[in-house]
Amino acid sequence: MGMGLDMKKLHVALGERSYDLLIGDGILSEPLTAAAAFAPAAERAALVCDETVWSLYGQLASDSLRGAGLPSEPILVPPGEGSKSIEQLSYLYERFAEMGLTRGGLVVALGGGVTGDLAGFAAATWMRGVGLVQIPTTLLAQVDSSVGGKTAIDIGAGKNLVGAFHQPRLVVIDPLVLKTLPPREYAAGMAEVIKYGAIASPALFGQLESGRPGGDIADIIHECCRIKRDVVIEDEFDTGLRMTLNFGHTFGHAIETKYGYGRYNHGEAVAGGMRIAARVGEMLGVTEAGTEERISRLLSRYDLDVRENTDGLISIMKRDKKAAGAGVNLVLLKNIGEATIKYVEYAALEKVDVI
Amino acid sequence: MGMGLDMKKLHVALGERSYDLLIGDGILSEPLTAAAAFAPAAERAALVCDETVWSLYGQLASDSLRGAGLPSEPILVPPGEGSKSIEQLSYLYERFAEMGLTRGGLVVALGGGVTGDLAGFAAATWMRGVGLVQIPTTLLAQVDSSVGGKTAIDIGAGKNLVGAFHQPRLVVIDPLVLKTLPPREYAAGMAEVIKYGAIASPALFGQLESGRPGGDIADIIHECCRIKRDVVIEDEFDTGLRMTLNFGHTFGHAIETKYGYGRYNHGEAVAGGMRIAARVGEMLGVTEAGTEERISRLLSRYDLDVRENTDGLISIMKRDKKAAGAGVNLVLLKNIGEATIKYVEYAALEKVDVI
Repeated sequence: MGMGLDMKKLHVALGERSYDLLIGDGILSEPLTAAAAFAPAAERAALVCDETVWSLYGQLASDSLRGAGLPSEPILVPPGEGSKSIEQLSYLYERFAEMGLTRGGLVVALGGGVTGDLAGFAAATWMRGVGLVQIPTTLLAQVDSSVGGKTAIDIGAGKNLVGAFHQPRLVVIDPLVLKTLPPREYAAGMAEVIKYGAIASPALFGQLESGRPGGDIADIIHECCRIKRDVVIEDEFDTGLRMTLNFGHTFGHAIETKYGYGRYNHGEAVAGGMRIAARVGEMLGVTEAGTEERISRLLSRYDLDVRENTDGLISIMKRDKKAAGAGVNLVLLKNIGEATIKYVEYAALEKVDVI
Repeated sequence: MGMGLDMKKLHVALGERSYDLLIGDGILSEPLTAAAAFAPAAERAALVCDETVWSLYGQLASDSLRGAGLPSEPILVPPGEGSKSIEQLSYLYERFAEMGLTRGGLVVALGGGVTGDLAGFAAATWMRGVGLVQIPTTLLAQVDSSVGGKTAIDIGAGKNLVGAFHQPRLVVIDPLVLKTLPPREYAAGMAEVIKYGAIASPALFGQLESGRPGGDIADIIHECCRIKRDVVIEDEFDTGLRMTLNFGHTFGHAIETKYGYGRYNHGEAVAGGMRIAARVGEMLGVTEAGTEERISRLLSRYDLDVRENTDGLISIMKRDKKAAGAGVNLVLLKNIGEATIKYVEYAALEKVDVI
């Protein structure tokens, strides 16, 4: 990396699967020497990207790789969740074969969560697993999906039903690319940022409450990645603690299903879900009084005014869990900065209205 | 398992991914209690099988699972290598969704290598990995593909290009099912058996030379699985030692490519490849003199009379390796029971004639 670049490094300690996250304004304008280290000599990296991101940052990223001695071959997919499909996955495999991507080869995912999930799953399964570098370009991907090794595609029966755990070799986060992110997508990423504050960091939550929206975003991303890193190294394969990252997501998924992915994006649905989860927690006496109001106010501050009550959500949740019983495990807050898992009966969730 | 059943157990020690191989005549006629332990209560296992094997052993296997308290849902695919496809994989995913296979669920692969590879890859990628029990029904699958965690499908550009390492929770080997195996498929399995003797066990090789073909097959399978187990626990992800299991396979794959998978089956091609590799080893002075003759005689004894020279194979190998240089790493024998890896220039491989 160049001189004078203010770059922060986070190490994800997972034994043989350990890797670094590099975070810094302008990283992508410098040679990506840290990525080139993972590619075999005399082989090009597969640079997977959607067409929109390619037009904005394709040249920057491929120049950054080439500057470090790593030529790349662009593989473009259409933008949108529809690309997390078996068809696009097959297309990636075909292109990997055409370019002669070997078992020691490297896939670079440049884009948002869809690209990261799709390219990550392709990397996980090409020749039983090749190297992966994530270069997330949305706030949501920078603070969430690019870290932790979850990769997936969708099938007709549901989202993320097919996938693999495949940790990247490196995650490169340049907050400057967020300048071109549409405001609504930026806000969606802030929903996950607020979630990290709510479940694990009173300091981050307080900073969001008092700071200028959009200020200090590199620091905020760093703090979110640190929290996620700490959870992932404790629970790489999502068998316990990692569930706390789903605060707001159980209701959020039900909201997405209720409206068919059209009305709300993921972050907005999670925002609605966090309001409900905070309300439920206060109702049950698990969550400190006043927490729902703080969460609701902070969400509104970041243009996340989604307010849904539980009408119609409970039946969706029951169907999702395939009649797994009379209730559901929910992530609830004890207070701002501390989450807990609590089994709650569906009966207690009927007619929950939020602030 | 029932009383009086002569069952042998091999433990594959891979930390959290450890599992047992159970080998015994008649195992499938008893309740498979060891398999039921890996399935969640109140959920059916997905029993993946091809139509031919289903007509022979479907009832036996599903009764054996049910006898242990584990109901199963058959998922049938057409017989043959063509089923290792993205299309059949998608079909498995659809069926998993229909039956409500959860993240804690269990896939049982009943059949030969194709079924094991396909069902294994589906299990590796369903909800980022569910449990897998292998019940191999061919000699090749019993001594080779069901052990070690390699799963894969084919794409247009090549065989096994897409896959995952996914260790099973249990491998159940009942040699009695081999009674219905067509003789040519049985012989194909013996090619791999002979390979194990050649690379790792003078005792096994001697037993095959002196024994009655077809006798003591349970013991022979056990010895092959022990050898493979020892290699796999040293090199789970195929980065070194595991390559010795490929003795005869580099030339074998070239033979398969030359004739387009029609003329020879995999075992026959490997038999031809072992003859060439033994010859090359003797030519180079790596392999003890007389080894080629012993291997050739033993292969003939088990109806594996494939004799190919290297005409036309070298150009195929060069193409396979994508111009990776002037030579290739080959598995050669020092003597019967000991293998080594040796870089050999292509020029030295022209016009090699076998006994």
